Amino acid sequence: MSREKYWTADPAELLRVGDGFELAKTGTRASPGFDGDKAAGQEALAEGAEVLAELQEQLFAMSRMGDERRVLLVLQAMDTAGKGGIVKHVMGSVDPQGVQLAAFKKPTPEELQHDFLWRVHKQVPGAGMIGVFDRSHYEDVLIGRVREFASPEEIERRYEAINEFEAELTATGTTIIKVMLHISRDEQKARLTERLARSDKHWKFNPGDVDERLLWDDYAAAYQLVFERTATPDAPWFVVPADRKWYARLAVQHLLIDALEGMDLDWPKADYDVAEQQARLAAS
Amino acid sequence: MSREKYWTADPAELLRVGDGFELAKTGTRASPGFDGDKAAGQEALAEGAEVLAELQEQLFAMSRMGDERRVLLVLQAMDTAGKGGIVKHVMGSVDPQGVQLAAFKKPTPEELQHDFLWRVHKQVPGAGMIGVFDRSHYEDVLIGRVREFASPEEIERRYEAINEFEAELTATGTTIIKVMLHISRDEQKARLTERLARSDKHWKFNPGDVDERLLWDDYAAAYQLVFERTATPDAPWFVVPADRKWYARLAVQHLLIDALEGMDLDWPKADYDVAEQQARLAAS
Repeated sequence: MSREKYWTADPAELLRVGDGFELAKTGTRASPGFDGDKAAGQEALAEGAEVLAELQEQLFAMSRMGDERRVLLVLQAMDTAGKGGIVKHVMGSVDPQGVQLAAFKKPTPEELQHDFLWRVHKQVPGAGMIGVFDRSHYEDVLIGRVREFASPEEIERRYEAINEFEAELTATGTTIIKVMLHISRDEQKARLTERLARSDKHWKFNPGDVDERLLWDDYAAAYQLVFERTATPDAPWFVVPADRKWYARLAVQHLLIDALEGMDLDWPKADYDVAEQQARLAAS
Repeated sequence: MSREKYWTADPAELLRVGDGFELAKTGTRASPGFDGDKAAGQEALAEGAEVLAELQEQLFAMSRMGDERRVLLVLQAMDTAGKGGIVKHVMGSVDPQGVQLAAFKKPTPEELQHDFLWRVHKQVPGAGMIGVFDRSHYEDVLIGRVREFASPEEIERRYEAINEFEAELTATGTTIIKVMLHISRDEQKARLTERLARSDKHWKFNPGDVDERLLWDDYAAAYQLVFERTATPDAPWFVVPADRKWYARLAVQHLLIDALEGMDLDWPKADYDVAEQQARLAAS
């Protein structure tokens, strides 16, 4: 595939959080494994779009014949890092019928009456789907920790609960890909500044974005802990440099394609007699 | 807009079901209002995709500022008529975050324990969204009538219930567009034949498709009754010739654009002091 010609190494290997990972020492502007510029990246993204769409359709087709497998992409990031752009430009190339998107905002009073995984469990994608979590149960150990919405003991308990929840999903056919889009403090400032400078972007800005920004280092520490406690072989974390939007999109697309290619998909065999149905149809 | 140059008349006017409408006399292969060929149609669709995406983003932006409005596209058709293609090629150009898709299949035992609108009401799109129903509550007066799943009295009652339900949605900010994709019996035969001829399409075929096909005239009569009983000024039906997929997609896209353009959308004004936030951000 020509889109592969630019990749000098598998981004899944380069971006996966492993032992000794340190967020503070991880770049936000590099393009690990991709030996090309923005134009090459956009070309590779367009080619990958067709590959991803066909793989998803095969996953969906197999689910119609009883295959229970599905993919779950978890997206976490600081504001403006580009979660929405991933949904629009990577998932947007997949048939909407094969994508199950869930955005987790501030919990409602009803949601707060339940354990923190209650609302998340309900949004696990169906068989044959690619589910996308725009924020997730990780908010409960990120803003939950930074803003002290829960006690330290409860936060500790939650890491375990998350690992058990994800192990259960994995055991029942879900391939989990957890992505943190990693931008720099300066890049966020530039992006928020642009939102304030353009009247067609004002609706995307919220004064609370600046409040969270002022806690940047606390969030970085909370993410570091998340990686240490919840990066597991079955549900790995990938930290994707995201100052350059084109690279982040391409890398996430590649992670999805990798995951689907590893599932040994194919068009399912008919579970009816084709010749018999052809005869019935001809006579109809 | 150059895409408009091919339209000689507003398809919303040409395709809307009005008094005296007769499905049996309505063509399946024409391209009402569009004076161009397939290539022109595809070009117009690509241009319309950007228009539709921006309008939907404005609708979404306004919902963030409290606007309650939303759009609901109801898709009904015989098998193979192209509902899935509308979702993929028309809705696929809109940001996935702005689309709420609901496919209604054979009711589950739990759904059957409730009135027929129970599962439908739950899927009404949120503010700022374009909802798409792939099949809908109309199945309950289509297959419901043809297969006699309900008594004639119950079917009669349902038309009224549907009109009241849709009036309630309209009164609370929903613009409803109901589309029947209209294909010929021969075209369906050709499309089913192709599915059986290609092993990568076998999964899309179901022997039950032929069973339903054998009841073609009964379905046509049931659709005719649906139009007579449920085409209302606030929730109109449009019958879209669908033997040519490119025309059907273009026409439905046009109906959506028309509806959104009629909603007087614009980028919402900031509900915060922009200069104050710029100062806070600069200092952060």
